[in-house]
Amino acid sequence: MTGFSFTRNGTDGSARLGTITTPHGIVHTPTFMPVGTSGAVKALTSDDLEECGAEIILGNTYHLYLRPGNALIRELGGLAKFNSWNKPTLTDSGGFQVFSLQDLLKIDDDGATFKSHHDGSRHQFDAEKVIEIERDIGADIIMSFDQCAPYPSAYDLAATAVRRTYDWAQRGLAHFNRLENVHPTGTALFGIVQGSVYPDLRKLSAEQITSLDFPGYAVGGLAVGESKEEMEKTLAYTMDFLPSGKPRYLMGVGYPEDILMAVSYGIDMFDCVLPTRNARTGMVFTSEGPLVFRNADCAQSDLPLDPNCDCKVCRRYSRAYLRHLYNQHEITAMVLATYHSTYFFQNLMRGIRAAIKAGRFADFRAGFLARYSQGENVADR
Amino acid sequence: MTGFSFTRNGTDGSARLGTITTPHGIVHTPTFMPVGTSGAVKALTSDDLEECGAEIILGNTYHLYLRPGNALIRELGGLAKFNSWNKPTLTDSGGFQVFSLQDLLKIDDDGATFKSHHDGSRHQFDAEKVIEIERDIGADIIMSFDQCAPYPSAYDLAATAVRRTYDWAQRGLAHFNRLENVHPTGTALFGIVQGSVYPDLRKLSAEQITSLDFPGYAVGGLAVGESKEEMEKTLAYTMDFLPSGKPRYLMGVGYPEDILMAVSYGIDMFDCVLPTRNARTGMVFTSEGPLVFRNADCAQSDLPLDPNCDCKVCRRYSRAYLRHLYNQHEITAMVLATYHSTYFFQNLMRGIRAAIKAGRFADFRAGFLARYSQGENVADR
Repeated sequence: MTGFSFTRNGTDGSARLGTITTPHGIVHTPTFMPVGTSGAVKALTSDDLEECGAEIILGNTYHLYLRPGNALIRELGGLAKFNSWNKPTLTDSGGFQVFSLQDLLKIDDDGATFKSHHDGSRHQFDAEKVIEIERDIGADIIMSFDQCAPYPSAYDLAATAVRRTYDWAQRGLAHFNRLENVHPTGTALFGIVQGSVYPDLRKLSAEQITSLDFPGYAVGGLAVGESKEEMEKTLAYTMDFLPSGKPRYLMGVGYPEDILMAVSYGIDMFDCVLPTRNARTGMVFTSEGPLVFRNADCAQSDLPLDPNCDCKVCRRYSRAYLRHLYNQHEITAMVLATYHSTYFFQNLMRGIRAAIKAGRFADFRAGFLARYSQGENVADR
Repeated sequence: MTGFSFTRNGTDGSARLGTITTPHGIVHTPTFMPVGTSGAVKALTSDDLEECGAEIILGNTYHLYLRPGNALIRELGGLAKFNSWNKPTLTDSGGFQVFSLQDLLKIDDDGATFKSHHDGSRHQFDAEKVIEIERDIGADIIMSFDQCAPYPSAYDLAATAVRRTYDWAQRGLAHFNRLENVHPTGTALFGIVQGSVYPDLRKLSAEQITSLDFPGYAVGGLAVGESKEEMEKTLAYTMDFLPSGKPRYLMGVGYPEDILMAVSYGIDMFDCVLPTRNARTGMVFTSEGPLVFRNADCAQSDLPLDPNCDCKVCRRYSRAYLRHLYNQHEITAMVLATYHSTYFFQNLMRGIRAAIKAGRFADFRAGFLARYSQGENVADR
């Protein structure tokens, strides 16, 4: 795995401080990866992301495969060059999107056949093909093709997903190693643990996937509709089976309180569309809780979105102005709200890392949540 | 007119270099004012506008009157504070929008009655009311309520518009002076010359409006569909009747070649939605002519939008990436394209000012147009 390494720089309870080194640079963990579905974090520029302190962004294999196509991205130098981010990137396996599609035509042990949401054309993903697509896109970290069981899932369906995920992980890793031997890219392939909320399936999947010695492991299949209690219980149980020397990635999470919870169990990496998607529908995250700035109570407010935030949006703009722009469907409203929430999540991660370093993560978490859940904005949830 | 003044700093032929001083700061002329219809230049932030070098932006009285309402803007400190631009602003009279409305209910010598495009509510604009709305919005430069005749217009209709524009200018100025005597704001009220493409009406309107001794004069009713030859002929004729000691504003113009033409006759101020509106539909302005970056010939191009541009978009992003984002309806595509074209227009104005200062405006214009009209992008018009 040329170019990829993970170093632990300290712990505080089960929470860990670390450094991931990739061909495109260093990522400090715990880290939150803004989601750049089609190659851009919606409404933001790469300059914005740098200002916010993001160190790694995610691209969606399903979307990039369809448009502009993995071949074009490869020809133009890979994702980080194509989108001019020039820093570490990660691609998901595409499985989550494909299995969520209304036009999923067939899924069996070999893979999935689906129709493009753009033009209805037929496509097929399997363990080997996904690896080839992801290598073309050229992220620093790529994910094994997995089957994410929906929530709730019957035990048998969840067990089938675990079996396929293991089979596809083996096939994908073997194909990856063959290809890397011929054309090394420095990309790191991560394995994904499934198992829904069934402890024995989580244990089985974790033991199977970690037996393959990937350079990093993801916990998939959470934040798909289960309660916060089920998420924590399942995560806590699963963590015991993940090696401490490899980065651990909780996919699709999440809310600030979920991130703090997961960090306390030793998760190093997160991604979620919440900060960006919600910003585009009129809700931002603040130190005093979620704020629905499109609401009428912001109409005459000259407060910034978050009075405790030092981002360039909060230093300059009022809630009244942002509400007005939002109601006029102005693109600028989406840009400013997305910027703030992206900054807020990066700032949260900076706070988490500093707290772990200082050995006061539990206090930091309690203090954050006290302000976050008691603030004036909580009624706006 | 506390706080407002115009200083001529040099000439080159009929082209002029000047400085407009306003309560919110200084504007170097010739200047191009990006249009912030509802209080934001679409897709841009105030930081973006500053980076591009904009010194004054325009707000639309019609839009701001309806949403968020002039009273709210007044309460929150006026337009420049409300939108956190904090620099000079100008509002149009709202007439152009009202007279273009499908739901224009009535227009007579007193004013216009119309339905809101938001909710169908009835509203009335007249010379006095528009002044009151504009004073509430609080721009540094406000415009008299005028009637802009469409193109083509029969002579009688154009003559009626000239008569009403004069009548409303007198009424508006008298009302403005009464209000300013009680509550001085430092706002400068400009007069507008109409007359369509009829020389005698232009002469009549210019003589009428300039007899009122406004601190600045606008040429309205051009760039509404007439040919470039008619625009130039009408503008050239009208300019002879505008005092050289006052700023001259050509409303709604325009293309780079039109700006260069008008500067050569002594116009000092411009505004237009072209750079921003076209950017949102996949076309940007470049030194080599308009570029339709959504076109297929950009699909694999790693060239920047404008190879001769040093804006932050051209320094970082390829045409291939911007085309991809545009085709995926990504907000980021609109942000980046709008930024470039806004920068391009501000850079054009910087070039014009430097050329006038150096006494080489004619050469600058010829050189710009040679590259602009001969470039590889000209086929994309």
